[in-house]
Amino acid sequence: MYELYSFPQLFDFSVKIFTAIGCSESDAQQAAHSLLSADIRGVDSHGVARLTGYVRLWEAKRVNASADIKVIHETPGTATVDGDAGLGLVVAPRAMQVAIEKARLSGTGWVSVQNSNHFGIAGFHAMQALDHDMIGIAMTNASPLVAPTFSKDKMLGTNPIAVAIPAGEEPAFVADFATTTAANGKLEILQRKNLPTPNGWVQTKDGMPSSNAHELKEGGALLPLGGDKEHGSHKGYMLGSIVDIFSGVLSGGNFGPWVPPFPAYLPMPQNMPGKGIGHFFGAMRIDAFRPAAAFKKDMDQWIRSFRNASPIDTNQKVVIPGDPEREFEQERMTSGIPLFSSVVQELMQLGEKFGIQLS
Amino acid sequence: MYELYSFPQLFDFSVKIFTAIGCSESDAQQAAHSLLSADIRGVDSHGVARLTGYVRLWEAKRVNASADIKVIHETPGTATVDGDAGLGLVVAPRAMQVAIEKARLSGTGWVSVQNSNHFGIAGFHAMQALDHDMIGIAMTNASPLVAPTFSKDKMLGTNPIAVAIPAGEEPAFVADFATTTAANGKLEILQRKNLPTPNGWVQTKDGMPSSNAHELKEGGALLPLGGDKEHGSHKGYMLGSIVDIFSGVLSGGNFGPWVPPFPAYLPMPQNMPGKGIGHFFGAMRIDAFRPAAAFKKDMDQWIRSFRNASPIDTNQKVVIPGDPEREFEQERMTSGIPLFSSVVQELMQLGEKFGIQLS
Repeated sequence: MYELYSFPQLFDFSVKIFTAIGCSESDAQQAAHSLLSADIRGVDSHGVARLTGYVRLWEAKRVNASADIKVIHETPGTATVDGDAGLGLVVAPRAMQVAIEKARLSGTGWVSVQNSNHFGIAGFHAMQALDHDMIGIAMTNASPLVAPTFSKDKMLGTNPIAVAIPAGEEPAFVADFATTTAANGKLEILQRKNLPTPNGWVQTKDGMPSSNAHELKEGGALLPLGGDKEHGSHKGYMLGSIVDIFSGVLSGGNFGPWVPPFPAYLPMPQNMPGKGIGHFFGAMRIDAFRPAAAFKKDMDQWIRSFRNASPIDTNQKVVIPGDPEREFEQERMTSGIPLFSSVVQELMQLGEKFGIQLS
Repeated sequence: MYELYSFPQLFDFSVKIFTAIGCSESDAQQAAHSLLSADIRGVDSHGVARLTGYVRLWEAKRVNASADIKVIHETPGTATVDGDAGLGLVVAPRAMQVAIEKARLSGTGWVSVQNSNHFGIAGFHAMQALDHDMIGIAMTNASPLVAPTFSKDKMLGTNPIAVAIPAGEEPAFVADFATTTAANGKLEILQRKNLPTPNGWVQTKDGMPSSNAHELKEGGALLPLGGDKEHGSHKGYMLGSIVDIFSGVLSGGNFGPWVPPFPAYLPMPQNMPGKGIGHFFGAMRIDAFRPAAAFKKDMDQWIRSFRNASPIDTNQKVVIPGDPEREFEQERMTSGIPLFSSVVQELMQLGEKFGIQLS
């Protein structure tokens, strides 16, 4: 069913593919790092399985592999970046770097990005702040799959939010979540197994409750976190909207139903109001608020008190955000990354196209 | 069942009460404004019905009516404010003002607050940014009523987040929501009517699903947005945690299970790691990212496209965050604010204590 590949194998292959489509060596390495951080952290839907999809976007001339990423507007603590239709995997780390540099001077740095593409997992970008004793924040809009409460139209993407917060002796707190009840990746797992979804994940094209994991293909929609009004879906809708506005409207990118789709075979939206996909990044220096050592000591206490909260079932302790992904990382850096045979086959075909071997 | 009072009546009464406990005239006016913004906007649970509760906190020497609110740490774009155990209703607007001033110079301003008390509704504070063509953000932690996913312990407050975003011809986008499935106020409505809760709102003291609206009194807990793991409660738990850390840990306030309770008769937590309740505020100048006029034009388009998204039921259009509260405001500024007879009675008793008439 799946085959194991080591991180260096997949990294080397990805770098060669990105170089083959025209990325500079350093951009190709950055793109491979961003992409593979998903596989390493257990978010299989957003990793190397998407490499072919990124290449198809390049073939469709929607990705510029030699993008001139630049700051087009700034203040001491903020910037707006034009991604020049580059790979989000490269644009996002560049923008996060700007946020971190701004934070050094102003306490915090905030960067909105227009004219980008999908950036992989939000958590990877937020985590860049950790080594600088900063809190990192990353979010992005995405093509519309989600219906706002009371509507049957797909108006929002799964619009994830990531927040990475340094601790002292404990590992960092890293939250990274789609603003929907369930991310698309979880739906794909049920699709493969031909299982129904729990209630509150999807609705039909007429806005009726559904448990059909294939509902999106039939015109249905994902639902905002909460599922329905009675369970707070208006809050999930508000969260997704905030991500959309910070990423798309504040940057001059596209927003709402006009965000371009990831699959290159899908048509672009009509009358797009902005450029490409939008992201939003933040970096907050801890010592812009209080001494970092005191903060980290309290974060350790925060983490320990939650980890040790009384479990309902003694076999399932409270999960500290970031722990599961870190455990994946430890496991997969040693034992390798499992790829579905279908993904391996697709990668091999991709390699053949460019004369690159996956070995 | 309820009686109508005009805004000026309740404002005048509240100012007199706040003055009677020792607030300066301007602080009393500020506190009354913060408090009554809830009644005006339809959030009855957080308004004048809580005035007696604030006074009880003062009687218990937990609120300092003549607090010396000051910045204790700062950078060009950030500050930490010590609320000196003042009324959150006064501390919060002061801190938000600091955020707005920082944003003028640095593009954005971010203020964490320690040693405060409950601040009323988050939306009111976030909205202070709107007149300055800024996005406003406000959040606060609160005493623990919410169990993290997989736990039976109450570790988090309802920890609300508010984000106010200016538009052009359209009214502003104002999101203001607790990070739980349902806010405590909604639970109180069901309690009064002796109705069960929908699933996913509360759990028993042993962490079992429940629909008992009185579950909290029996040792149970509120649930994070999502309700249970299958429906994304880990996301609600992460959101509530982020609010707690930004408000409590970053400021040097209390956090998690150590946040002091609002009811003055409840004992204070043991071994508190910080001071008082924590808040976190942000102000982001729109033109720190792109010209405000262009942003507002796009925000109008965003709002109109969502408002006009196809409804599932033609009688219920998509709601733009902030619209319901603004409609309440228009209605109640003209027709008056309805107060439950029990609330009126409590206010009259409060007035008698200080020789102040509610008229």
